[in-house]
Amino acid sequence: MDVYTNVKNICDKAREASRSLGKKSGGERNLALLKMAEAILNAKDEIIEANKKDLENARSSGMKESMQDRLMLNEGRIKEIAKAIVKIADLKDPIGTGDIFTRPNGLEIHKTTVPLGVVAMIYEARPNVTPDAASLCVKSGNAVILRGGKEAINSNKCIVAAIRKALLECGFDENCVTLIEDTTRESSSALMQMRGGVDVLIPRGGKGLISSVVENAKVPVIETGAGNCHLYVDRSADIDMALKVAINAKCSRPSVCNAIETILVHGAVAEEFLQRFYTATRDYSLELRGCPLCCDILPGIGEATEEDYNTEYDDYIVSLKVVGSVYEAVEHIRKYSTGHSESIITEDHRSADYFTSSIDSCSLYVNASTRFTDGGEFGLGAEIGISTQKLHVRGPMGLEALTTTKYVIKGDGHTR
Amino acid sequence: MDVYTNVKNICDKAREASRSLGKKSGGERNLALLKMAEAILNAKDEIIEANKKDLENARSSGMKESMQDRLMLNEGRIKEIAKAIVKIADLKDPIGTGDIFTRPNGLEIHKTTVPLGVVAMIYEARPNVTPDAASLCVKSGNAVILRGGKEAINSNKCIVAAIRKALLECGFDENCVTLIEDTTRESSSALMQMRGGVDVLIPRGGKGLISSVVENAKVPVIETGAGNCHLYVDRSADIDMALKVAINAKCSRPSVCNAIETILVHGAVAEEFLQRFYTATRDYSLELRGCPLCCDILPGIGEATEEDYNTEYDDYIVSLKVVGSVYEAVEHIRKYSTGHSESIITEDHRSADYFTSSIDSCSLYVNASTRFTDGGEFGLGAEIGISTQKLHVRGPMGLEALTTTKYVIKGDGHTR
Repeated sequence: MDVYTNVKNICDKAREASRSLGKKSGGERNLALLKMAEAILNAKDEIIEANKKDLENARSSGMKESMQDRLMLNEGRIKEIAKAIVKIADLKDPIGTGDIFTRPNGLEIHKTTVPLGVVAMIYEARPNVTPDAASLCVKSGNAVILRGGKEAINSNKCIVAAIRKALLECGFDENCVTLIEDTTRESSSALMQMRGGVDVLIPRGGKGLISSVVENAKVPVIETGAGNCHLYVDRSADIDMALKVAINAKCSRPSVCNAIETILVHGAVAEEFLQRFYTATRDYSLELRGCPLCCDILPGIGEATEEDYNTEYDDYIVSLKVVGSVYEAVEHIRKYSTGHSESIITEDHRSADYFTSSIDSCSLYVNASTRFTDGGEFGLGAEIGISTQKLHVRGPMGLEALTTTKYVIKGDGHTR
Repeated sequence: MDVYTNVKNICDKAREASRSLGKKSGGERNLALLKMAEAILNAKDEIIEANKKDLENARSSGMKESMQDRLMLNEGRIKEIAKAIVKIADLKDPIGTGDIFTRPNGLEIHKTTVPLGVVAMIYEARPNVTPDAASLCVKSGNAVILRGGKEAINSNKCIVAAIRKALLECGFDENCVTLIEDTTRESSSALMQMRGGVDVLIPRGGKGLISSVVENAKVPVIETGAGNCHLYVDRSADIDMALKVAINAKCSRPSVCNAIETILVHGAVAEEFLQRFYTATRDYSLELRGCPLCCDILPGIGEATEEDYNTEYDDYIVSLKVVGSVYEAVEHIRKYSTGHSESIITEDHRSADYFTSSIDSCSLYVNASTRFTDGGEFGLGAEIGISTQKLHVRGPMGLEALTTTKYVIKGDGHTR
């Protein structure tokens, strides 16, 4: 069977499964989640064994240590996975909430949340995305098609086998969760073309993966991830606070999308802030790249180019720029931002208001670190990713993002 | 200047305009709408003059009479346009609504609706879409780029000139509303490629236009329109009601997307329903095409092919099929529906429940005509179109569909 037909068959079976899943009650779906968690715990030895194969392949193909760590599963991590599934079962059911309203002509309109139907995910080498996506989708009544990376294929097969067994045991269609075992480029490309077969495709991973999906998909996509985030230190800033937030936003976890890449600082406080920031970040071996004014204040640091301001480093590097006003800071951010998260440190509420009302990003912070842009931190309970688009959902995506609306209208022979 | 650069410049100016528009209060935006309505009334002689040119071109190029009627503007229609704008001003402001919640760590999260930014519309020969789209966008704080068809270009230019004059007069950036005067295929194609320049593109018009936009656009699109809608007459149906609803759903306005294209009828009531339907619809010169069982009951009608069941006629033609059960009706609808609107006529609540819970369409009716799928009928006040997609908005789109969410998060030096 060719790759396209294979993927098409998987989509058809997932559609069928989504129909029976859509009729399960919230209680039944939660029970299935608990069974899935149990099945993963019970299969821990097989999963660790399979994961060892993936790790061996990773080592022999020269994968970076930090990537190998993301790939690795041990007993502790498997317990964490099971715990996360139980936590998802505990969340409020996103399905079946809604309004009923009666129109003046007597028509009764029921507006209700329903599952999207068939959700597909394309991701890379992190096997924990597999149980995570599967449980979020089962919770929200969606069938899911998983296309993980080849690096984690043995782990993924083993995890999905355990999940499907659990689904069968509690009377669910096992095709509610399907792994595409073909990890060639052709299989993800087929998935991207499956109009009518896939209701939404969510890419999770690096920039290359996401932009390839956004550019090539014919099915609806939720774009996630890109974060060229900024911190602006206003002239009225509390400099101690600015330093604390800047270091947290840059250095606590530089590889994630809500970390900052550029710090803009008002000329009136530039000297104090930059010198103290330079000293304070030496422990992190943070590389600083600045505008000419920054380089005057901190001789010896590199110069920031136009390309630097456009770059999401995801690393221990930061661009710096001295600006003359909050207006100039806003101009800079408008030009270079990817619309994710930006923060202002200020004691002046007019600067804060101008900043938050003038920038068209998803999350705008006043006197806080951009690192809080996260489903858990926002209180959504679970997160499928962070949407950087404006349609459907913006920012951290909870279970609600996996639903759509249906109208059921009851009449008594009403005609128009 | 080449077409792409021209469209890019228009997008850049619209972005700039959207920024100042986004800061206007609801009251200021409503005032601008009233001025726009007034300006259109004041310019009625010029608009009618310009429209005459369009009508002459239409006649000499042999446009269908019904299309010519849609293109035509007279004093009465211009008054209707102005009245519709005033009605939009009266609607609730969709911007700035939201929640504030405080997290356990003290972070204060404000979640607010904000405009999408720059909205683009591609449409055909109906000049009334121009003031309609312009006023919905100004109401919701969005700049709009209008790419109407060449058939209405003179009318559109004149209407947009009046609107821009009104915007300027009340201190708005005139580029809040811009018409792309180039009506070549290249200009709409350029608009579809404008990633970052256009936040959403809404096609309004025939199937050809919509599928071309959905297939080719690189910018986010809201798909509207396609409606292969069904009516199912259950064995328990009140046949008088079934006839009344069937005739309304098919014949009251066959050219619109919420009209039905196929009637499915349970075998137990097929003979009575079909014979009475045949008699009752002779006044409409409705063409009937049926399955072999239908042709037995109504000798002389045409046979319905697979292609018929797949076709949105938008005309005085209907496909008929006798089915053995509500299950078979649901199977048929699942196979052929475009997910718009379907109706069941039944006195049996189990059939009604099975029908409404098993079909994945936007609007499911029990004992009512599909013709009610409409923003006005649903009480949304205004309608930008009917979304046939699942992401962002499904079904009739009100002003809310032109908004997205922004988070403003206030802390006191919070770090994670």
